[in-house]
Amino acid sequence: MSIDETVRTHKITLDESEMPTSWYNILADLPSPPPPALHPGTLEPAGPDDFAPLFPMDLILQEVSTDRFIDIPGAVLDVYRQWRPSPLFRAHRLEQALGTPARIYYKYEGVSPAGSHKPNTAVPQAYYNAKAGVKRLTTETGAGQWGTALAFACALYGLDCDIWQVGASYDQKPYRRLMMEAFGGKVHRSPSDLTASGRAQLAERPDHPGSLGIAISEAVEVAAPDPETRYALGSVLNHVLLHQTIIGEEALLQLAKAGETAPDLLVGCTGGGSNFGGLSFPFLREKLAGRMDPVIRAVEPASCPSLTKGVYAYDFGDTAGMTPLMKMHTLGHDFIPDPIHAGGLRYHGMAPLISHLYELGMMEAISIPQLECFAAAVQFTRTEGILPAPEPTHAIAAAIREALACKESGEEKVILTALCGHGHFDLAAYDAYLNGRMADEEITDERFAQALSSVPVVG
Amino acid sequence: MSIDETVRTHKITLDESEMPTSWYNILADLPSPPPPALHPGTLEPAGPDDFAPLFPMDLILQEVSTDRFIDIPGAVLDVYRQWRPSPLFRAHRLEQALGTPARIYYKYEGVSPAGSHKPNTAVPQAYYNAKAGVKRLTTETGAGQWGTALAFACALYGLDCDIWQVGASYDQKPYRRLMMEAFGGKVHRSPSDLTASGRAQLAERPDHPGSLGIAISEAVEVAAPDPETRYALGSVLNHVLLHQTIIGEEALLQLAKAGETAPDLLVGCTGGGSNFGGLSFPFLREKLAGRMDPVIRAVEPASCPSLTKGVYAYDFGDTAGMTPLMKMHTLGHDFIPDPIHAGGLRYHGMAPLISHLYELGMMEAISIPQLECFAAAVQFTRTEGILPAPEPTHAIAAAIREALACKESGEEKVILTALCGHGHFDLAAYDAYLNGRMADEEITDERFAQALSSVPVVG
Repeated sequence: MSIDETVRTHKITLDESEMPTSWYNILADLPSPPPPALHPGTLEPAGPDDFAPLFPMDLILQEVSTDRFIDIPGAVLDVYRQWRPSPLFRAHRLEQALGTPARIYYKYEGVSPAGSHKPNTAVPQAYYNAKAGVKRLTTETGAGQWGTALAFACALYGLDCDIWQVGASYDQKPYRRLMMEAFGGKVHRSPSDLTASGRAQLAERPDHPGSLGIAISEAVEVAAPDPETRYALGSVLNHVLLHQTIIGEEALLQLAKAGETAPDLLVGCTGGGSNFGGLSFPFLREKLAGRMDPVIRAVEPASCPSLTKGVYAYDFGDTAGMTPLMKMHTLGHDFIPDPIHAGGLRYHGMAPLISHLYELGMMEAISIPQLECFAAAVQFTRTEGILPAPEPTHAIAAAIREALACKESGEEKVILTALCGHGHFDLAAYDAYLNGRMADEEITDERFAQALSSVPVVG
Repeated sequence: MSIDETVRTHKITLDESEMPTSWYNILADLPSPPPPALHPGTLEPAGPDDFAPLFPMDLILQEVSTDRFIDIPGAVLDVYRQWRPSPLFRAHRLEQALGTPARIYYKYEGVSPAGSHKPNTAVPQAYYNAKAGVKRLTTETGAGQWGTALAFACALYGLDCDIWQVGASYDQKPYRRLMMEAFGGKVHRSPSDLTASGRAQLAERPDHPGSLGIAISEAVEVAAPDPETRYALGSVLNHVLLHQTIIGEEALLQLAKAGETAPDLLVGCTGGGSNFGGLSFPFLREKLAGRMDPVIRAVEPASCPSLTKGVYAYDFGDTAGMTPLMKMHTLGHDFIPDPIHAGGLRYHGMAPLISHLYELGMMEAISIPQLECFAAAVQFTRTEGILPAPEPTHAIAAAIREALACKESGEEKVILTALCGHGHFDLAAYDAYLNGRMADEEITDERFAQALSSVPVVG
């Protein structure tokens, strides 16, 4: 092959005029509704009023809506246009390196100001809060992708933004914190002495490394009693997944533009589920309607496999037990995952909507250990030119597995995945991998069993 | 103003089919040619053969061509398409924060895989070298933008890539080095013990912080004697500026799409001159042809002001005196600038083409100290949502100066600038600024005078 033929790019773009103007609500199309959230005190189904101390009414109504499509406000579309429609790439150069007959496509969300898919929901959340007169948002963040996105969104609407960052990440990734501060966010190491729940953890262990569950408890504790402050969550909840469906809606249009009738496999990484839900729900709609039949596969880290090793039960979203109880796949709300580099996937639970779909058999799940993920990521970087965040390396590794299986079988499968963020702030992870200082997770069934004992017995 | 009206985005995109397919060569339109480069030994004008140990013939011919337009090879266009055409943004939210009647536009090059404008030339340089059968490229890098771009480009074409990184940056910015390594580049701290010029510097000072001039000497020394190795430069030379003109060509089309007849002011940061030349040359063509009359303004750092404090004279491109002599604005080839955060602007000389244009009075230049630059950058980040690299903060500060002058005068000027890269690897600089640990450069006229004494007396 000549040098003129070896390097090809296939970027499938949409014009701004083709950008979807509504989010897709999969609740409208499910064969059965997911179990309701329960009030943590009464164990009765939680109503809109129970969520009012935490969220503005527009978001609460989206959380429970069964409308199939929900209009994206014009002002939100106007911000989306800074980086949307995001590109869909055909991974020609990766395919060539693998020698596979499969066609691999990836939807790239790293083009957003925060470098990930998170602004897709941070912007509407900040918008609805600002519209409701809220002055400040609180939130948690792990690796910092979500905190960065919310700090960006708050800067747009003049909201203050207080972010509790998981202590281990706060210590290890100072650049992430600085990015949030550059956007004007205020970052607190969690557990902090600013909250009762934080102080309780610090009393037990002054150098506590924190967890997403603890950081959520702190952010919720500060928001709930203050009428000018609300809380924002970056994943898990229905309205968050709703906002992310713009990813899949665009991908549907782009695949058609590329001349593909349908993907054979759709694969995405799952932490709380917002990236995976955002990509897959519009394709699930098409599948439910009989218009296509892709395999839909979630990929979780071996160290935090809520779908493949957790139980499907009511559990708290946070460590202190302040949130409503949600029916979800959970490892137990006091499960503290090993400090793997994919900080965004270190959450004990899975979005109730994804959990419900999994129970219905509408999708499958696997887990992959991190060495395979980083090997895939380096191959991806050197062929496709984009350095993935540690989270989507799981999806890339799964896509490569399938592409290599196609090489064996000769099948020309169409594989679609989401590259939900770049890894510019995660180079310490690449350092560890490239210089032989990374190991696979080792986690015993006993440890899972112990954590699962924290799942409350409900009903 | 309601919340629905406060946040606007105006992104002016081009379709791939509108992407320019040739680079613009300003040598074709100059009223007088720039003085030739001189052979460092004979002091005679250097011919193509003198450059052959360092560059492939395709690039040498571009260096001296007087053709007005040079076709971009299809294979290079195919790679450009991964991120090009790059977006032009109207800075509505910044304008609103400033309260200015000016209209500010910025061309954003941070969307490239390396995060800056550098791949615009790294890709064709790697392409022409690969086509000529070269197996390895050597280069220098300061902050690391150029090294990252070349490592990316070399990965595409299967070339080895050896990068000498200025010691101070190598020590301070390990993430940049890791990014180059993730792309497969080999990074050496400069001065290194791999070269005679490096060893000479280390003998004088074992912990030498290095400089771009020293790193160039090392990369040239390794490339010149090896028939399978060539050298690549990220700025300064004619062919490098040529490749960057795609920025300005696209911006011309995009401004017209936005309904603007012409910019009143075009402003860009200048280190070696490739970003500034790339943006401004197509506009200079229009100006020379009488079709518009923008003021064209270069902005350099107060610590390394080659245009505003240097002399226009023949000088070496590197510290050891191995390169041809170029007529340029120079602070003296042994000038070591203070370690400001805009590492990409710390070069003792200015591109001969830019220097010539400056002498002809076709553009003007100012210098700005770094505190003003970072204040501008933080305001930009919190309004426009993009964190600039330290280099383009100079251009942003100058654009804001002009916009505030318009606020006084009431003029509705059209200001165009280039945001040539994001600052994801430069957050230590933002840390210093946000936390009060940054000071303005202090540099005495005596120090400039002393460095200028290293400029050789020629002719």
